Formats: sequence, structure tokens, C-alpha cells
Amino acid sequence: MNSLSPAAIADAAQRIAPYINTTPLLRSRLLNSWLGHDFLFKAEGFQKVGAFKTRGAVNALLTLKEQRALPDRIVAFSSGNHAQAVAYAAQLVGVEAMVVMPCEASLVKRRATIAYGAQVMVTGSRGEAEARAADLCEQGAYLLHPFDNDWVIAGQGTACYEVLRDGLQPDAVFASCGGGGWLSGTYLATQLLSPGTSIYGVEPQRANDAVKSCRAGRVIQLTEAPDTIADGARTLSVSARTLRYLRRLSNIYEVDEPDIVYWTQWLNHLLKTPVEPTSALAMAGAFDWARSQHTPQQVLVLLSGGNIAPETQRRIWAEDCLATTPERKAAQPTGVPVSTAPQA
Amino acid sequence: MNSLSPAAIADAAQRIAPYINTTPLLRSRLLNSWLGHDFLFKAEGFQKVGAFKTRGAVNALLTLKEQRALPDRIVAFSSGNHAQAVAYAAQLVGVEAMVVMPCEASLVKRRATIAYGAQVMVTGSRGEAEARAADLCEQGAYLLHPFDNDWVIAGQGTACYEVLRDGLQPDAVFASCGGGGWLSGTYLATQLLSPGTSIYGVEPQRANDAVKSCRAGRVIQLTEAPDTIADGARTLSVSARTLRYLRRLSNIYEVDEPDIVYWTQWLNHLLKTPVEPTSALAMAGAFDWARSQHTPQQVLVLLSGGNIAPETQRRIWAEDCLATTPERKAAQPTGVPVSTAPQA
Repeated sequence: MNSLSPAAIADAAQRIAPYINTTPLLRSRLLNSWLGHDFLFKAEGFQKVGAFKTRGAVNALLTLKEQRALPDRIVAFSSGNHAQAVAYAAQLVGVEAMVVMPCEASLVKRRATIAYGAQVMVTGSRGEAEARAADLCEQGAYLLHPFDNDWVIAGQGTACYEVLRDGLQPDAVFASCGGGGWLSGTYLATQLLSPGTSIYGVEPQRANDAVKSCRAGRVIQLTEAPDTIADGARTLSVSARTLRYLRRLSNIYEVDEPDIVYWTQWLNHLLKTPVEPTSALAMAGAFDWARSQHTPQQVLVLLSGGNIAPETQRRIWAEDCLATTPERKAAQPTGVPVSTAPQA
Repeated sequence: MNSLSPAAIADAAQRIAPYINTTPLLRSRLLNSWLGHDFLFKAEGFQKVGAFKTRGAVNALLTLKEQRALPDRIVAFSSGNHAQAVAYAAQLVGVEAMVVMPCEASLVKRRATIAYGAQVMVTGSRGEAEARAADLCEQGAYLLHPFDNDWVIAGQGTACYEVLRDGLQPDAVFASCGGGGWLSGTYLATQLLSPGTSIYGVEPQRANDAVKSCRAGRVIQLTEAPDTIADGARTLSVSARTLRYLRRLSNIYEVDEPDIVYWTQWLNHLLKTPVEPTSALAMAGAFDWARSQHTPQQVLVLLSGGNIAPETQRRIWAEDCLATTPERKAAQPTGVPVSTAPQA
């Protein structure tokens, strides 16, 4: 397995540019005044299909097309954004796509995937979806893996690349960690354009397989999908490919479910754009980091997307988190380390 | 009371341009394929303070400044978007603002108003807020009325004006009806640039004072704020000034609460931008109109804003409306007219 070169991100950016949106970089004057740092938000909710996943899927299929190696049929497994991204990318290059989705995937995401032109097959668990996709590959379809694929990683890196290309050199970049593809591409993008920037991943405490894998130095596999509201982080494991990049990050933060909900409400409120819980996950980690900094920092937070199923909306808005401002939250004592005193 | 000239809208657009956002015009390919019409959405959720109200408030205060008649102190009553708009506009021209808000106004809107630099006074009902604002005027403050003001009307008309100025001549324009200021300005904008376009207002059935006022030919006043989820349409009455324009509209539609919630969910889902219930109200009327059309129509729907309080989010997402697509909804039989058989 060869490493990707950082230049692959620049190549990917050029390749996919005509087919994706250059997404806006948002700031909240109010949030920055409360927290005393300069937070910048790359809003992938404005990306095609409403999530960054389109970048990787489009880069992979366009690369196959350039190499005259485009298969007749693509297969993918996904419970959400990757499904829609693969459907979009396959329609773009004119190949058939079959997406295997676990039954936990929301009806609205299944419908959207079909609307983008893919066929959808529904299975029981995530593990079953992966196995069924593998079967289809044996029958000759090409598996477009959501993160264990260099072209996908290079494509995902273009979100951060777009920001750095415009001349910004933030002190830190935060992104959520599912399979690790986004963080891998983000790491490469900063290596290319801003090597002094620190990169941080953020995982739900309930789905901290990446932290465990980094500590163990090998991929730790969960047996079933963790119950976190950040559905993009419900992946069962990272891969050996992405783990190599994850181990080079400055740190991976673990955050609890109430903090993910808190930042989902606040970012939706402040940024006036739909922010899915997996996006808010990154901000929850960025907030924990920023409050420990003694001088003003510039922090880039990569927001994964804006696709929120109705049942998730109900969970998000069950309690009112807007009653506690981020300014007040920042003044509250931080939790003691998990290792010495587990939190409720 | 002199009528405003349509040219006042063009003047207002030029005056306020440096201080407001030119908001995007959004389309959903999927929605249009389902409904067979070309729906365009003017997304005022991207406006300063997240709502179209900024246009009118800024135009009024800049006009006073041009006339060297700027008061030391502005007073306004509002339960939401006008409050924030007045605070923003007052800060812009450097005068003090006091906003009287009824206690039904959400905490988050009160906080936002304060964050834009205004003082906030909280009263009991809407009627009390209006009375308290009148008291403050007697003590020398200038009342910036949310709709009974020609400069405010001219400012609100600039949203539609921006769309028409770019050369569009839609078959119909829909906007929600609270006090009628937005519809009055919209009527004038079309008179100026696209007189063949039909203008429609939309009201909640539960807050149909504008329909009643148009029928009666005089302003009908509600005694208490109607219980509709479309909080921008909870105004107690239109004014004689706005009624003159409302009577020239093609029609005012009345829609029920489930339809407002339905379109709030669907527009948030399809447009990937926060759409408040008062915005969805306009779409609910546009949908009712469009399904009765036998040829494809171009329909401009003016979306008032994107400010949704957490308690409103809970009501919006209590049931899953995304299970019924607009395509399927369009195939359902329409309700029989209210006059002959009242609906549940």
C-alpha cells in the first residue's frame, strides 16, 4: 500500500471542480465575540447532495474514467451521505449504481439516493450491508468504498484544500471521524499548503474506535453500530489505510452526546444553515480545545453536511440548549479526564 | 394618506444595497420535477438578522438620516424578526433603540435583539406591547412601525424587486401575510417591473384577519394573538395603509396548520436552508394555487426568513411529514371550499 502524495489533493481539486460546489466559509461574529477565538466554518451542507462525501465519490469515478477503467456497475454500502454521493457521481459518469443500505438508514435518505438515480437494496445491520456489497463485487461490480480508497481520500481532502488555497493558515483544523477518510485527506491538504497547522479529529465517546485503534496501533473493530446521534460516525472501524494518517494527527477528541446536541442546536441557530450532528461533533471537539488555549486562535471547523432525518430532528430539539450561551458554557468547569473519573 | 409610487421601491433598493445582503434565489430540481412547475424561492433567511424585515427598517432609518430628521431614540414593538431588524438598523445609523416584546417572544429572539445592540422591554400580550411602545413615543421616541409606514413598505418591496430586476417575469408571486407590509411592497415592485405578474398573499386559517378585512373593506382587528405556528402571521390586524394594497392582490389564500408544518419540513429538507413556518406558509398557498393550474407556471415564493425558536422546532418535527412526497400530496384530492363544508 503506497502512501498518497499531498499533491494528489490538488489534482483532485482540479478534476472535480466542474462538478461540485465551492462551498462557503462562514463566520459568526457573535460566537467569536463570546469565545475570543476566530472560528471559521467550511459549510459542506451546501455541497452537492448536501455533504462532503460527493467530493470523494466524484474524484474516484472521474479518475477511473480518465484511466479508461470505468466499470459498468458500481456498488457501495452506506447508511446515508455516501449513498447519495455515489448515486450522484455514478449518474455523472453514466454508470449504474447499486447502494446497499442497512435498515437503520432513514427513509428520506433512501428516497434521495433513488432520486439521484441509484438502485437501493436494504439489509439488516451495517455488517450485513458490507457483506452484501462484497457479494455483488464478486459478481463483477466495482466497490466504491466510503473511505478505504486513495481517490476517495484525495477527494475528501479538497474541502480543506479550498480554504487553504485562498491563503488561510489556521492554527488548527477540526473534522469529525467516521472511517477516517476525511481526516486523512485533510491531513494531506495541510501538508501541502499549511504544514504548521494542527489537525484534530473528533469522535463520539460512544463510538471511539479510532481513539482505541490509534492507541493499539491496529484497527479495532466494533461488533455493532454504536448508538450516537452523529450518524456519520457510526462506522464499525477505520481502515489500515486511514489509520496511518490518523496516527499523525495532533489528537482525537472524544465528546459526549449532550455536547453534540448542544452544538447542533447552536450552529443551526448561529450559521443559518442546516448543520447535521456529525458536523456539530467537530465543533464540540474544537470548543474543548479552544477553551484551553490562552491566546486567540484561528480555528477551521469542517462541517460534514446538512442532511438531517426527521426522527433525528426530534431528538435534536427535544430539549432547549439555546438557553445556555456558548459564552456561559465556556465559563463552566471542564470535565475531569475520563481515565480517572468516568463521566455520567 | 398618499399612495407610494412604485419607483419608491427602486429608490429603496439603491439606498439599502450597501447594508443588506442580496439574497439567493433557490430552486429544487426534484420539487419542480414532482410538481411540474418552476418554483423559485427568494431566501431571506440569508438576509441580515435572518429575515426580510431588515430591508424595511434600514430603508426607514436611512431615509430619516437623508432628511436630517434622525431621532435620538427609536422604539418598536415586535415578537421577533422586526425586533432584530430595528436593532440592526439603529446600530447602523447610530441611534438608540428600545424594543418592546410580548412575553410570548422566544428567549432566543430577545437575546439576539440585545446582541444587535437594542434595549428590550418585556410586556404581557401583543396588545400591551403596542400600547407601551405608544407611551414611549409620547415621551419623544420615534415609533418604527413594523408595517404601517411607507418607507418600511418600500424597503420590504426590494426583495421581489431584486428578482424582477434580473429579468424574471414570473406568472405568480406568493408571500405570507402578517401586517401586509411585505405584500404591499411586493405589489409595488411588480407594478414597476412586471405588471403582468399575479400577486397572492397567504394567511393561516387561524389568523385570517386580512381575508376578513378585504371582504369587509375595512380593517378587522383580532382581540388576541392567534395560535398559529407561523409566528410572523400572529399580528392582530393589517392597517388601512396596507389594506389598500391587499385589496388589489389576485387573492389571499388561507391554509391550515398541518400544511404549514408539512412545507416547513419539506422546504428545510429540499432547500438546505432554514425555512421558518411563516415562509412555508407562502409555499402552502403557492402549492394550492399551482395544483389547480393546467399548464406549467413559473412561481416565485418569497421566503420570509430562517429564525426558528427551539420550542417551535419541537412542534415542527413532532411528526414525520417527509414520508409523503409533494408529488403524492399533489395527487390527493383537494379540500372542498371552506364556505360550503368546513374542514376539520
